[in-house]
Amino acid sequence: MLTVKTSSEAEKIIFDTFGKNSVGIESVALLSSVGRVLAKDIVSEEDVPGFNRSTVDGFAVKASDTFGCSDSIPAILDFKGEVLMGETPKFLIDKDQCAYVPTGGELPDGADAMVMLEFSEDYGDGTRAMLKPSAPGQHVTFKGDDVKAGQTVLKSGTRLAARHIATLSSLGYSKVDVYKKLKVSVISTGDELVDVDETPVGAQVRDINSYEVCAALIELGCDVERVGIVVDELPLLEKAVKDAVDSSDMVIVSGGSSVGVKDATFKVYDKLGDVLFHGIAIKPGKPTILANVSGKPCFGLPGHPLAAYYIFNLFVKPLVLLMSGTSNESILKKTAPLTLSIPCNHGREECMGIRFVEKEGKEYAEPVYTKSGLVSTLSTIDGFTRIARDCEGISSGDEVEVELF
Amino acid sequence: MLTVKTSSEAEKIIFDTFGKNSVGIESVALLSSVGRVLAKDIVSEEDVPGFNRSTVDGFAVKASDTFGCSDSIPAILDFKGEVLMGETPKFLIDKDQCAYVPTGGELPDGADAMVMLEFSEDYGDGTRAMLKPSAPGQHVTFKGDDVKAGQTVLKSGTRLAARHIATLSSLGYSKVDVYKKLKVSVISTGDELVDVDETPVGAQVRDINSYEVCAALIELGCDVERVGIVVDELPLLEKAVKDAVDSSDMVIVSGGSSVGVKDATFKVYDKLGDVLFHGIAIKPGKPTILANVSGKPCFGLPGHPLAAYYIFNLFVKPLVLLMSGTSNESILKKTAPLTLSIPCNHGREECMGIRFVEKEGKEYAEPVYTKSGLVSTLSTIDGFTRIARDCEGISSGDEVEVELF
Repeated sequence: MLTVKTSSEAEKIIFDTFGKNSVGIESVALLSSVGRVLAKDIVSEEDVPGFNRSTVDGFAVKASDTFGCSDSIPAILDFKGEVLMGETPKFLIDKDQCAYVPTGGELPDGADAMVMLEFSEDYGDGTRAMLKPSAPGQHVTFKGDDVKAGQTVLKSGTRLAARHIATLSSLGYSKVDVYKKLKVSVISTGDELVDVDETPVGAQVRDINSYEVCAALIELGCDVERVGIVVDELPLLEKAVKDAVDSSDMVIVSGGSSVGVKDATFKVYDKLGDVLFHGIAIKPGKPTILANVSGKPCFGLPGHPLAAYYIFNLFVKPLVLLMSGTSNESILKKTAPLTLSIPCNHGREECMGIRFVEKEGKEYAEPVYTKSGLVSTLSTIDGFTRIARDCEGISSGDEVEVELF
Repeated sequence: MLTVKTSSEAEKIIFDTFGKNSVGIESVALLSSVGRVLAKDIVSEEDVPGFNRSTVDGFAVKASDTFGCSDSIPAILDFKGEVLMGETPKFLIDKDQCAYVPTGGELPDGADAMVMLEFSEDYGDGTRAMLKPSAPGQHVTFKGDDVKAGQTVLKSGTRLAARHIATLSSLGYSKVDVYKKLKVSVISTGDELVDVDETPVGAQVRDINSYEVCAALIELGCDVERVGIVVDELPLLEKAVKDAVDSSDMVIVSGGSSVGVKDATFKVYDKLGDVLFHGIAIKPGKPTILANVSGKPCFGLPGHPLAAYYIFNLFVKPLVLLMSGTSNESILKKTAPLTLSIPCNHGREECMGIRFVEKEGKEYAEPVYTKSGLVSTLSTIDGFTRIARDCEGISSGDEVEVELF
């Protein structure tokens, strides 16, 4: 008989056993990489920008030629010509010379600053008057200011967002190496379950957990295979789990894991591989199973949808993120004072659903009391707080840390 | 000549003109609705659960029969039989009777509480001993406890997450009505631009903005058409914008919007429709354009990638969310004290990039000083803070509100 683990013991077993599992790498088009996890460090092979670039429309000058100039004592400079966008100037700027450069255009060699167009005047005699001094480097982005050749600009493990895509495009990545999507198979088991498009008869209920868990995995960027409902019979469940292990990186079975009359998930996992724990001392969600089948993590989640969702967030999600290759992601958390006291608990770590409410412009955490089977509650709460097993209650007004869904 | 607008004037024009634009509705499979926006209120047609359900493995009883019982004075009840999962019991529970019901099973009529299996004993004579009293309703979810028929459980405008999918599956929605994805066409314009897979020659630079903006739109759930680079020539740009307006709900052109030698975006928008503003008094990103072409919003964003990204987040994103049908989404914000002072600004509202840093366990907002052309900066900042035009500087240690990317 396996003993119940504390949540930190369970986390340790999960990460010690499967923390090094990972998926392969694939190359995808730049815009297809949004939301994917970068699989290699991005090291720039070039300076960005590749030339000294103006950040304004105006005149490229030697800054020292403009020192001390003003509206009343302008600096009169010879006009050498206009630099067109995207073209490398074919002339130099020498002392007392200037050239027109548009925003984004390249400064001629010899120039080290820009004077904005509005602070200049055209005297119509081949000269331009500068009415305001510029310091060296003013209105100029120098070659390599943004990125120097050899610099690491993005780390492997980064979940690619729009601003990373900007960086990748600036360096010329039309394709990006990302981790393959983690493939997860999700099975619901239970004789009482019918699929979502069927009408429950008598005491049947619709399968909620496989949809809930699949949706959560889709949100995390996984490639999801919803096997669907398998009745609580050993040979059928065994075949479904075996097939799922063969075709996936991770298997999740929900339902069938409480110590009741039937306990098919435990028996199947125990037969096909090693059950690493059966039960976590946490409320709700005690009947959680983890097994190692052919080196792949196989979870058994509680049958109650709310309990299954807490356990998914606490124990499955961190492993999904790790196996997906992310190194910079953690569970989003927010701290707020409680609106109501949470009474003592019962020697077990406890998850309490939290809804954020605003009172007089300040945000508070409202504990939501519910039975674990209640699904409608789930769509009205924003996350949950963990109450330690030795905690004797939390008072109204005390700050709690809320893990956001 | 159009005058420059303040950011709140610009917001008002955007929402007054296009706030009622919306996309159609389509029906998609339940798991395809993850991340989509619900287009109709979901009203339950049935009670959930549809029967009185046990939340434990144990015995269904009349609670009053167990009052006062204990280990030493058990309540001895006649065993009426076992209720199987998913089956409606064919017998009643009368006074001094009990029946075995598994977790999730239906209580027989007459029973109003459960006693957990571990607090019972089988005497082997057709009776069962209850060793602990249960209160009425204990370990039972009553019919309709979760959702009552006629109750609105999800509001139109909700971005569907895993927990909403759970609710929808419990109510039997195998398909869901969601808003169609907002279709946005994105054009880059500028003679200096080359595409990401080309090597810039001379003062050419790679197109960053169209990738950055497309990626941000993908993150918001849009259907994106990247038209790509169109050179700064009126007839070509005019044709590209016309085609984009015909095929999309919104058009975004970036680059070509500063008051420089060329100003093709303004001229094209002015010719094809009404330019509503040209310039917002905000730094960086002054050269922002909004036009109404055939009733569709057409933006012109600054050419600098960082400026374009700020303007996108400030002015385009809220309209994208609104037109996508979302009612419950706002820009994520976080408050933290500054690590460094931000000096006065210059009569213009200003955006300052912020990176969160941790010092002695507390989170601080570090202002990131950068030239607006620098793309590598973008991937190292977490968001930005807005500095009001009349603000004379913010001191180190002052709390600032950061809008997160």
